[in-house]
Amino acid sequence: MESTNGLVTDAEIKSFFDSAPPLRDSAGITNKLKEFIQLNSAPQGNASPRRVVCVTSGGTTVPLEQRCVRYIDNFSSGHRGSTSTEYFIKAGYAVIFLYRRGTCQPYCRSLPEDPLLECFEFTNGSNVQVRQSYSEAVKRAINDHHAAIAAGHLLKLPFTTIFEYLQMLQMIAISMRDLGPHAMFYLAAAVSDFYVPWKDMAEHKIQSASGPLDMRLVQVPKMLSVLRKEWAPMAFCISFKLETDTKILLEKADMALKKYKMHMVIANELLTRKEEVTVVTADKKIPVRRDKTQAGSDVEKPLIELLVEKHSAHIKDADK
Amino acid sequence: MESTNGLVTDAEIKSFFDSAPPLRDSAGITNKLKEFIQLNSAPQGNASPRRVVCVTSGGTTVPLEQRCVRYIDNFSSGHRGSTSTEYFIKAGYAVIFLYRRGTCQPYCRSLPEDPLLECFEFTNGSNVQVRQSYSEAVKRAINDHHAAIAAGHLLKLPFTTIFEYLQMLQMIAISMRDLGPHAMFYLAAAVSDFYVPWKDMAEHKIQSASGPLDMRLVQVPKMLSVLRKEWAPMAFCISFKLETDTKILLEKADMALKKYKMHMVIANELLTRKEEVTVVTADKKIPVRRDKTQAGSDVEKPLIELLVEKHSAHIKDADK
Repeated sequence: MESTNGLVTDAEIKSFFDSAPPLRDSAGITNKLKEFIQLNSAPQGNASPRRVVCVTSGGTTVPLEQRCVRYIDNFSSGHRGSTSTEYFIKAGYAVIFLYRRGTCQPYCRSLPEDPLLECFEFTNGSNVQVRQSYSEAVKRAINDHHAAIAAGHLLKLPFTTIFEYLQMLQMIAISMRDLGPHAMFYLAAAVSDFYVPWKDMAEHKIQSASGPLDMRLVQVPKMLSVLRKEWAPMAFCISFKLETDTKILLEKADMALKKYKMHMVIANELLTRKEEVTVVTADKKIPVRRDKTQAGSDVEKPLIELLVEKHSAHIKDADK
Repeated sequence: MESTNGLVTDAEIKSFFDSAPPLRDSAGITNKLKEFIQLNSAPQGNASPRRVVCVTSGGTTVPLEQRCVRYIDNFSSGHRGSTSTEYFIKAGYAVIFLYRRGTCQPYCRSLPEDPLLECFEFTNGSNVQVRQSYSEAVKRAINDHHAAIAAGHLLKLPFTTIFEYLQMLQMIAISMRDLGPHAMFYLAAAVSDFYVPWKDMAEHKIQSASGPLDMRLVQVPKMLSVLRKEWAPMAFCISFKLETDTKILLEKADMALKKYKMHMVIANELLTRKEEVTVVTADKKIPVRRDKTQAGSDVEKPLIELLVEKHSAHIKDADK
């Protein structure tokens, strides 16, 4: 079933989706997507319709048992995706934020690990109040977040497993198809490379009594090429490559660019990813760095500025 | 190196701890433990010293790479441990809450998934206020939680990996040794059964280019018997057995009781664990059920009442 050129075959993709447990509330998600895209693709007065970006964020899990007790997880705090979402909204985009449950949310990155227990206190009159040191961060989190949702510029859709993630990504891509080149995919989620097909999975908890545990995981079909070719062929597509070994990072980013026909691949290294990334395109590699002269600056600000500019060029090209 | 009777050998334990990455801020944790136990083991006026329980909560992770991108996780919300902590404190215990980062905290179980974004709103005057429907839950979370910490009845210590968990459990147990039978262990955490020894682990991110991934995981040495025999031999010890298959649950709980010389094993089944558990002791199996005639009741209330009573008997026995 494996194709010879490293790309996925239709049979592999069908097999993955057939093996996935059915997505809960799939009809509800479809409706939300439809409404959100309708709202944002309507002409905005004299201006052109709002651009829509799907930002994916956080890691996917791979269940090892059907009644899931154990699973493989991919480390990702969701900072990249949530911070980028803020800048996309600021730049006038509508954002579909496909995020792992429990990871960092837009406008919340300045908050401590457990905001409720750390940012609030009770006054003597037993009214809740924000601790002085957190007042700006809390105000920003609550105000800006609710404002983005109320204005219809932010749609949040949570996932946990690789099955949910890919099923939802497909639904989003298909619903964004009519936006043509005005659609963007910013795929910052840490997606599992390997999984256990649902039918091969132990139904019950794996027993630990008898010696070492040998596991065989198979590769998750790379859906990037299908996204580009079939789900949303006109959209501007950006994927991420994270490695811990700098030596192979740019080479692997280059390979991903060609293999999956991405418009750009953002290469980042685990230890320096908050300081610097490299935007890999067909003809050049552009380093993007955090502005170190500014306290509290981040690499996402210049990165999103660059991407918005490249997306404009993509739209212009398509309109020719 | 494996022992023949299923119990762990000193060599296995040494090998596990030797293979573990060093615990961060180990001196700081030791100090916190020392202070907490000193405070709570001092005579309280005319009353006897406060009993101390170590409650473990949430699941441990097993890193698959040294620079950790992928890991195996054990599903556990931390509801059992955090709810039980509230009842232990109410019953006059001091609680060392050894919990997985990000899991449910004591007094917070009535809150929604993302309390900050769901429970608060800004008024027109741009003051933060609690939404009416959450006011009781938020008040309880913030007030009761801070009160327990301020009174010195709650010490929270977070972990993520199996290495951190077992290193910290050992430190806690040794620091509680002098409490003799007044100490209790309530081991509700979902502890990994299998791990990859640090030295066998890939340094860099596992590459996905070349076919399926075969992994061999080895068993985590069962530390329960060492806890009982060496770390805290006088303490009252309760462990948990979670299964998804009811047919083998009680049998496995019974085996754990005998093998690790626990005083009690709480048997729970994944789907019914919030309604009912079975307390397995050497001479009987006691079903404990949530009081269904009361809205919002939980199984932890009658469970902790029973355990406190059994702990009193344990102390009385030891004093003979």
